[in-house]
Amino acid sequence: MKKIAASIITIGDELLIGQVIDTNSAWMAQELNKTGVWVKRRVAVGDVWDEIWNALNEEHEKSQIILITGGLGPTADDITKPLLSQYFGGKLIVDEGALQNVKYIFEKVLNRPMIDRNLKQAEVPDVCTVIQNKRGTAPGMWFEKDGRIFISMPGVPHEMKGMMTDYVLPELQKKFTLPTILHTTLLTAGIGESFLADHINAFEVALPSHIKLAYLPNYGMVRLRLTATGDNKETLEIELQHHFNELKNLVKEWMAIDDDLSMQQAVGKLLIKKNKTLGTAESCTGGYIAHLLTANSGASNYYKGSIVSYSNEIKQSVLHVDEQTIKTVGAVSEETVKQMITGALNILQTDFMIAVSGIMGPDGGTPEKPVGLVFVAVGNKEKVVVQKFNFRFDRQRNIELTATNALNMLRKFIEAEA
Amino acid sequence: MKKIAASIITIGDELLIGQVIDTNSAWMAQELNKTGVWVKRRVAVGDVWDEIWNALNEEHEKSQIILITGGLGPTADDITKPLLSQYFGGKLIVDEGALQNVKYIFEKVLNRPMIDRNLKQAEVPDVCTVIQNKRGTAPGMWFEKDGRIFISMPGVPHEMKGMMTDYVLPELQKKFTLPTILHTTLLTAGIGESFLADHINAFEVALPSHIKLAYLPNYGMVRLRLTATGDNKETLEIELQHHFNELKNLVKEWMAIDDDLSMQQAVGKLLIKKNKTLGTAESCTGGYIAHLLTANSGASNYYKGSIVSYSNEIKQSVLHVDEQTIKTVGAVSEETVKQMITGALNILQTDFMIAVSGIMGPDGGTPEKPVGLVFVAVGNKEKVVVQKFNFRFDRQRNIELTATNALNMLRKFIEAEA
Repeated sequence: MKKIAASIITIGDELLIGQVIDTNSAWMAQELNKTGVWVKRRVAVGDVWDEIWNALNEEHEKSQIILITGGLGPTADDITKPLLSQYFGGKLIVDEGALQNVKYIFEKVLNRPMIDRNLKQAEVPDVCTVIQNKRGTAPGMWFEKDGRIFISMPGVPHEMKGMMTDYVLPELQKKFTLPTILHTTLLTAGIGESFLADHINAFEVALPSHIKLAYLPNYGMVRLRLTATGDNKETLEIELQHHFNELKNLVKEWMAIDDDLSMQQAVGKLLIKKNKTLGTAESCTGGYIAHLLTANSGASNYYKGSIVSYSNEIKQSVLHVDEQTIKTVGAVSEETVKQMITGALNILQTDFMIAVSGIMGPDGGTPEKPVGLVFVAVGNKEKVVVQKFNFRFDRQRNIELTATNALNMLRKFIEAEA
Repeated sequence: MKKIAASIITIGDELLIGQVIDTNSAWMAQELNKTGVWVKRRVAVGDVWDEIWNALNEEHEKSQIILITGGLGPTADDITKPLLSQYFGGKLIVDEGALQNVKYIFEKVLNRPMIDRNLKQAEVPDVCTVIQNKRGTAPGMWFEKDGRIFISMPGVPHEMKGMMTDYVLPELQKKFTLPTILHTTLLTAGIGESFLADHINAFEVALPSHIKLAYLPNYGMVRLRLTATGDNKETLEIELQHHFNELKNLVKEWMAIDDDLSMQQAVGKLLIKKNKTLGTAESCTGGYIAHLLTANSGASNYYKGSIVSYSNEIKQSVLHVDEQTIKTVGAVSEETVKQMITGALNILQTDFMIAVSGIMGPDGGTPEKPVGLVFVAVGNKEKVVVQKFNFRFDRQRNIELTATNALNMLRKFIEAEA
């Protein structure tokens, strides 16, 4: 089967000076991939006429589908709409549907008067199919030229996501006979990428050409992904599952999760299965573990809350960590995190507890307790396990690594319990 | 002065199936921009020989500097190093410095034995200048060809950042006479992008051609950025400041911050100035506000901690929200967030407090209390202010909007206090 290739073009100076991180492209790539469209390239260009024009020409040469986001705002630095009109040989006209939508948003949603600039948002080139925007004022545009499809959408993430889901992906599925692309993923912890690669080398070499293995190292763990491409979904699924089982068996010693889940999702799944509750007592992670857990819808079924004891006063007054402990061995110590577990279990009344205390940097380190030193405790009323870590990264990464490792310790603790 | 243009090429299938969000490019663009290098394009390609080769050829045509990240791992899907060797007409040899580094990392840092695959990491094309990697095993490579500079670095963020800061940026500054690029930024809240654009239209039109205005809407707020390009830093600074003052004056009614700071950084700055402390009581944001505040180094000077009362039991048992209140008006109500403020001020003993309770979705909404309904309270022992919000987005965005608006409410509360 012939692969259908797509290019993603993102437009905006903010992407080229690094003021904004491009999360749109990742989301679009994920969804296109699931639909069976192969994303070949992603290109970001600034709000510069020639740059955008050239990017359209170049990606036209490379892909059948060209998705464009950004540059559709009502301000002067947004030049994409007139450019597209000229590129496809059209002229700008007011689209009645888009106009009604702009009026509706101002009258009913924003509840404020419109100005001329807002009405301009309803203008589209007369050579496109309009994609109505249910979440904002800028309409999307669908162009066809020389057998290529060009789709222009706003850069506002939830507006773009709405258009993709409601219109673009279903239409692409109608237009093309797309292959089936299937992924299976597992997460390993406690083994380096190169060792893993050595360990499963024979497996990788023996894979058929339409099934590929990828290594995705992150936060000191390595995710392994198998990707299969084919025509028949049923047989492909069976084939992929066969190889995935073989892989799981090979890495079982280090396997944390046999699914494409984050560590916090895996912990949540486990807690639901066991019908148990969790709380956290966080010093150095400052609420980040609580945030990761509550970012998942349905977290209230197992996650009760956190005492973020960023200051030592709160460690003492709320968690009842002994003043003497902090004076003698310090807030970053095995003894402190153990006492945090006890205190937090008492106050939050959950089945399991995570407690962390450490030095995230860049300041606050000493020769005895350098930046990156972290104590993590996990436990319940009967038992507490403590582990000491020495991370060597920047503040953000130290926080992320502490959180992921703490969740992995809890996962192991719960699994060992049963 | 001639602009020096750069292209950034990121390599890796994970970027094209959306498994990883590209944060490297944004950071690199930011740093290059500060140095005076204009980032013209960013391109992402997969681990495919022809795609990488073509991207090198194409960006060679467009930019003087081509920065490449990714594809340098020790596993079979990383093909960048042999490709670069062939592209620049070299052959792979072991670099003694890189070899010593790999050995050092395994012996002293990781404290585990090496395998052949790790030694491979020390191989580099004999036509490059090696950039030693102090944070990992894969060396960077600097190539020059036809007056173009190609720099290949690992995709691991902290390794790439280290190489950029220690070597790449200083070397680029030596090689090129770079223009001065200056930015000033302010943040507005409470006014839409199109209204703002209308309001400052005359100002924008009157700007000299080497000073540009950009609108960066995010989280319901609009950031305005002035960018000036020139040769003489001193005169450019004065000129930019003049226009920035004019802009500040025009938007003073909506201006939240006259600096390129996040809302949490602005709140931190204000608290330090007033020598006051802050705590949070979070339900629906689940620790996200605490995380935003503690992501800043030095937060312990003003931020004491949080009670993440995700469950109603904890709202009652720890924050002493009245059981009757929750039964009659519910946990998502003005009365509840008010009581959360009082309870949390008592237990955390801070000067100021933020409390939030809402329904983040996708589940949990009712006709009376739909998804997106949030109550935010900010206050101190004397006074509490409550605001009701109706956000209409997905879970993640609702959490982010709640956090940013809560911090902005606190900022206004503190400023009104003085």
